Amino acid sequence: MRFAPLSLSLPVCLCLSLSCASLLQRDVGSHGSSFAHRSELRQAKRIVVKLGSAVVTRGDECGLALGRLASIVEQVAMLQNQGREMMIVTSGAVAFGKQRLRHEILLSQSVRQALHSGHNQLKDMSLPVLEARACAAAGQSGLMALYEAMFTQYSTCTAQVLVTNLDFHDDEKRQNLNSTLQELLRMNIVPIINTNDAVVPPPEPNSDLQGVNVISIKDNDSLAARLAVEMKADLLIALSDVEGLYDSPPGTDDAKFIDIFYPGDQQSITYGTKSRVGIGGMEAKVKAALWALQGGTSVVIANGTNPKVTGHVITDIVEGKKVGTFFSEIKPAGPTVEQQTEMSRNSGRTLASLHPDQRSEIICHLAELLTERQEEILAANKMDMDLAVNAGHLPPAMLNRLSLSPAKLNSLAIGLRQISVAAQDSVGRVLRRTRVAHNLELEQVTVPIGVLLVIFEARPDCLPQVSALAIASGNALLLKGGKEAANTNHVLHKLTQEALSMHGVKEAVQLVSTREEVEDLCRLDKMIDLIVPRGSSQLVRDIQRAAKGIPVLGHSEGICHVYVDANASIDKVLKIVRDSKCDYPAACNAMETLLIHRDILRTPLFDQIIDMLRGLVILFFFSFLKKKSFPSEAKSLRTEYGDLECCMEVVDSMQEAVDHIHKYGSSHTDVIITENEDTAEQFLQQLDSACVFWNASSRFADGYRFGLGAEVGISTARIHARGPVGLEGLLTTKWVLRGDGHTVADFSEHGTMKYLHENQPVGQPLAGQRDSN
Amino acid sequence: MRFAPLSLSLPVCLCLSLSCASLLQRDVGSHGSSFAHRSELRQAKRIVVKLGSAVVTRGDECGLALGRLASIVEQVAMLQNQGREMMIVTSGAVAFGKQRLRHEILLSQSVRQALHSGHNQLKDMSLPVLEARACAAAGQSGLMALYEAMFTQYSTCTAQVLVTNLDFHDDEKRQNLNSTLQELLRMNIVPIINTNDAVVPPPEPNSDLQGVNVISIKDNDSLAARLAVEMKADLLIALSDVEGLYDSPPGTDDAKFIDIFYPGDQQSITYGTKSRVGIGGMEAKVKAALWALQGGTSVVIANGTNPKVTGHVITDIVEGKKVGTFFSEIKPAGPTVEQQTEMSRNSGRTLASLHPDQRSEIICHLAELLTERQEEILAANKMDMDLAVNAGHLPPAMLNRLSLSPAKLNSLAIGLRQISVAAQDSVGRVLRRTRVAHNLELEQVTVPIGVLLVIFEARPDCLPQVSALAIASGNALLLKGGKEAANTNHVLHKLTQEALSMHGVKEAVQLVSTREEVEDLCRLDKMIDLIVPRGSSQLVRDIQRAAKGIPVLGHSEGICHVYVDANASIDKVLKIVRDSKCDYPAACNAMETLLIHRDILRTPLFDQIIDMLRGLVILFFFSFLKKKSFPSEAKSLRTEYGDLECCMEVVDSMQEAVDHIHKYGSSHTDVIITENEDTAEQFLQQLDSACVFWNASSRFADGYRFGLGAEVGISTARIHARGPVGLEGLLTTKWVLRGDGHTVADFSEHGTMKYLHENQPVGQPLAGQRDSN
Repeated sequence: MRFAPLSLSLPVCLCLSLSCASLLQRDVGSHGSSFAHRSELRQAKRIVVKLGSAVVTRGDECGLALGRLASIVEQVAMLQNQGREMMIVTSGAVAFGKQRLRHEILLSQSVRQALHSGHNQLKDMSLPVLEARACAAAGQSGLMALYEAMFTQYSTCTAQVLVTNLDFHDDEKRQNLNSTLQELLRMNIVPIINTNDAVVPPPEPNSDLQGVNVISIKDNDSLAARLAVEMKADLLIALSDVEGLYDSPPGTDDAKFIDIFYPGDQQSITYGTKSRVGIGGMEAKVKAALWALQGGTSVVIANGTNPKVTGHVITDIVEGKKVGTFFSEIKPAGPTVEQQTEMSRNSGRTLASLHPDQRSEIICHLAELLTERQEEILAANKMDMDLAVNAGHLPPAMLNRLSLSPAKLNSLAIGLRQISVAAQDSVGRVLRRTRVAHNLELEQVTVPIGVLLVIFEARPDCLPQVSALAIASGNALLLKGGKEAANTNHVLHKLTQEALSMHGVKEAVQLVSTREEVEDLCRLDKMIDLIVPRGSSQLVRDIQRAAKGIPVLGHSEGICHVYVDANASIDKVLKIVRDSKCDYPAACNAMETLLIHRDILRTPLFDQIIDMLRGLVILFFFSFLKKKSFPSEAKSLRTEYGDLECCMEVVDSMQEAVDHIHKYGSSHTDVIITENEDTAEQFLQQLDSACVFWNASSRFADGYRFGLGAEVGISTARIHARGPVGLEGLLTTKWVLRGDGHTVADFSEHGTMKYLHENQPVGQPLAGQRDSN
Repeated sequence: MRFAPLSLSLPVCLCLSLSCASLLQRDVGSHGSSFAHRSELRQAKRIVVKLGSAVVTRGDECGLALGRLASIVEQVAMLQNQGREMMIVTSGAVAFGKQRLRHEILLSQSVRQALHSGHNQLKDMSLPVLEARACAAAGQSGLMALYEAMFTQYSTCTAQVLVTNLDFHDDEKRQNLNSTLQELLRMNIVPIINTNDAVVPPPEPNSDLQGVNVISIKDNDSLAARLAVEMKADLLIALSDVEGLYDSPPGTDDAKFIDIFYPGDQQSITYGTKSRVGIGGMEAKVKAALWALQGGTSVVIANGTNPKVTGHVITDIVEGKKVGTFFSEIKPAGPTVEQQTEMSRNSGRTLASLHPDQRSEIICHLAELLTERQEEILAANKMDMDLAVNAGHLPPAMLNRLSLSPAKLNSLAIGLRQISVAAQDSVGRVLRRTRVAHNLELEQVTVPIGVLLVIFEARPDCLPQVSALAIASGNALLLKGGKEAANTNHVLHKLTQEALSMHGVKEAVQLVSTREEVEDLCRLDKMIDLIVPRGSSQLVRDIQRAAKGIPVLGHSEGICHVYVDANASIDKVLKIVRDSKCDYPAACNAMETLLIHRDILRTPLFDQIIDMLRGLVILFFFSFLKKKSFPSEAKSLRTEYGDLECCMEVVDSMQEAVDHIHKYGSSHTDVIITENEDTAEQFLQQLDSACVFWNASSRFADGYRFGLGAEVGISTARIHARGPVGLEGLLTTKWVLRGDGHTVADFSEHGTMKYLHENQPVGQPLAGQRDSN
């Protein structure tokens, strides 16, 4: 008797032994329903991990993939030690047995030659054909010994459970199995379950059923599903060598990975051509998964063979990360983030094609809504504030950032009106116009970058600001805000979409659910063109690390220097140093290290600086100074204090100051204070930072103070935008060439045309108007 | 007796039992010397892999890190099966024994309570204090069983060898050990060597020697070194939990990783403060490594615990990749690539500070040298050509690209002179000038990006071209050329440095050794600011994949479309389609897919297009067309044929063409052919590609044809530069602010100053001249 296929009402081309109707008797859904969202998987208590043969065995199928198996054991043991109840459905006995039998046979055949020739004859010999059931029997004990040895390393006990489908067929047997497993779980033992292959019928050669026999030994999808439902498991993790489910065969032009699969969507899937033994293929996996889902067990199908993730694929799934395909019965109300991105890109394209005045109008309307609908906004904000205060975990500074007031909304509206002015001259500006040849005109035109992802923390006023910047630059926008401001963000986003609706581009700005993990968003490299993090430098660092292949506009650190030259004016030094450090010490453009020319040490200025700073900040010293018995020694010259603390160091010359900054700085903003113009110009020229200042506070490094209007952020990247970034940072260009049947061949040696390459005045007209010469 | 420390003439604070002078007797260097370069490690036949206890055990030291161990076994078995002779020096018996004894003791104490309470009491209990030697004895058998079970999976036999230092002390014993190991290796068996801890003296409590006793059990550095030399191994791989060697304690401001360590450099290393049992620390490792090196064995110290690389750390090392610290006795003549980068950055900063005329002069001089020193260049090129022809593996097209001629050199020189003109107006150009306030003036000035890495293949003429572009833009440059052109590149680089010398910036352009792996260069993200690959799209793709955190300027694919609208002119269609596909089919701007408006199918134009194309190219069809019994069906609409092949598809409207291109294109260059200006402008506006053309061949997408002068490349990235990139693509900007003691506080509500933000004319003067208002 073979292990019976599952009971589903789908067209079942694979159900070869469906005659056993009694198999269908099971208590579907009797223990509540499966989880609706990945984030809930963290609550899963009882988990079945199914290891397909592709996971357990090496590529050549002649032995076990030990490294993979060991790290899976490690994860299972870890989850078990967290108090979860783990069960493993394993393949691998056949592979283990094959390896063992082959080894035995070969050794007995040729042990002496092999040992005396000194060559590895074993591997040159052809593999004898071995019967799978014999292999399974020979391998099972070794496989279990290996599992036991591995789990012992984590102080975890295991138990072997071999089953046939008779054990499910017969109610009494099923209850016996059930109570045995319950007892094992109760004793904190991990049951390792496999089919009892030794007692299944032999494969029938040259028969259509041959494949099935192979499967009954190799494929454990249905066994795992059956067990999971029988044992009322919360989660079934089915690991094999595929990433999960695609809507068409992977590799074809349009194949899209399915992150969450809803049973109702099944029609939309095209399976690939099945091989003869295709019962172990994706369709069978999906069938088993749906069966388990119907029985109340959540299912994730994932790849257990990818070396990059094997070491944490199971724990990632249990932590709710986007790994593999998650099967869910409950379709969430809103669109997925992928659908949102698609919607915003499409609507964004229309936004980009509007007249600048129209984009400007949208922003003005949003500004109006901020004041007109104040009450609604403030009510939502109050809800967030109340929640935060009751939860009691937000520090006062954060509460302050979270809270909105009529005054804050008013100044927000004023800012938005400024952006609406800037919007008049952003998209579609002609930067360069060249007459390439007679009737061949080239223009370089500003265009939006595409889809922006802006991630911000607890400050809800970011939302309309960022939205206005995106609208002004014609970009589609995905917003991901902090959980704390969920209610406020929801209202502000609704108002933004209301404003966008006036020109039919409502969907261009999307608010991503707070459930979405930032890390997962940063992986959408085919859908998102630029990430702008707005928040702490920790946030920026995390995002820079997580963003795979998507540029990030921002800076993760600001280690700004002020260098006081030998010829500095006392007044300017005291004024600028104080402003640079103390005006707003948490800002990225605040001074972190003060460099002093050695000549100053012997002057009254030095004491004045020390006196002033000592009254304001905690000072740290380095090298020369630390010998002078100043109390606090700086641990590093690369520290960003972000507080009323600052490091002080002595240098011998302007050149040494430059070298110091190149070595320890972050290329953000650096200042020289001197009355010597030559020294100053040398400093400004040589220093390789985004902002270099002479006799001015480092705090001027800011888009508003620079007069850029709206500020997107400050970038310390070396390409694209650098320093304070205005709207231009959200624009790129495209080249528009208008010809009259021109070919490159026309310009070849024997061609009829010549390149003119005449630069034309750029003027004001927008793209879309043709020169008629 | 403890395992004795090694014999070195260094100040040996660790040699506690150096009395055994006979230990020093060994035949140093008797079997030739160690390898000079990592790339030679591929030839290593006999390899000792030493697994430190940090590698073998888990963080809590209470069990083995099975996943790690298994993947190490996998790698060792693989190398053994390649015909190498592998030996393992292992730790881990103590950990295995600890785990086992603890388990036994706890079980015997409380098995009943644990089993019946259902809770995992085992893990809650405190670990009994176990004696290390007892643990080692108890663990050794289990450890070996595990190794054997694992290696069996790869058909590899193992043998246990336990040694004490008596076995090295006594000549006869040493020879016995030696011949046993030789015999094992001859029989293709992997010896697994450990210290026979059960027979070493017990640790003396509260003695300064306690640490040493711990080490004699735990630390196998010296054992591995001793064995490697005794067995005349070619390579010793010492794996522990550190990346390798740093020149100062890791984590300090200036700590630099040492890629290759030369014994002569030892003075330059500062070791961290040693813990009491620090004998197992880095200094001991280095001592052991130097001892092995002196004995003729190459050594690599690397991290065997990094989950990202554990699966291939050993094979990577044997493949010559930059993993860990490589110990070499022979210091290569030239600087390391890190030193080259440093030199070029420093010299590049001087280059950037030259007057534009001076940069221009350097380029002109290089142009002169290309013609003046023609014979030298052509002689070197002939050597390369002869080598390539003799090797016989280069296809004719590649040979053609490799070869230089007086004509090629002449046109190169002409190109360089054009770049020298462009150099006049690149660095130091003021893009924006703002009067922020009275006496507070802001400028945005163009500056070089920093250090460029340009990777090119067999075309040596790339070298002077790229050098000229870097010089013109004031950038430092690392050049990595193909091996085939090594001699030519060498001469061309020499001439480039000669030209650079005229203004003292010789080192700004560096030629990287052909031995350096591109992949390793792409990891220097702290040193290189931009990578420009010049070559096949495969090269670009490889580099985009390898570049970690460094932006890559280029495009990996060019899937360009020509859309023939319903209102297209027959003449223009035939001309443009032919030119777009056939002018140079391998180019990235050649047409790959021809989109036809459905209305054309019924017109003679369609037949004319088909007739023309059939004579020139192989046509593939999709959807509607494939039903019309055209023979070849395209597999994918995303194929870049790069040859006289092209795909054809029917669309119902201009809008559908745009959607098709957005879905399947690569945003490179796309063309519409139509006589309807409205349709054309809609297409140009809506299509989101770097280049969008109307009635002109896609082949115009090129820096020279666009009139940009020198071309850096074509970029399909969305930020920084897009489409054909001229010199500007190698520039960024910095903000220069000149004040007179201005602080931000002056501009606060109660301050004395007001922002003016007046835009000033940009004019021509370079940065460095101050307005005096």
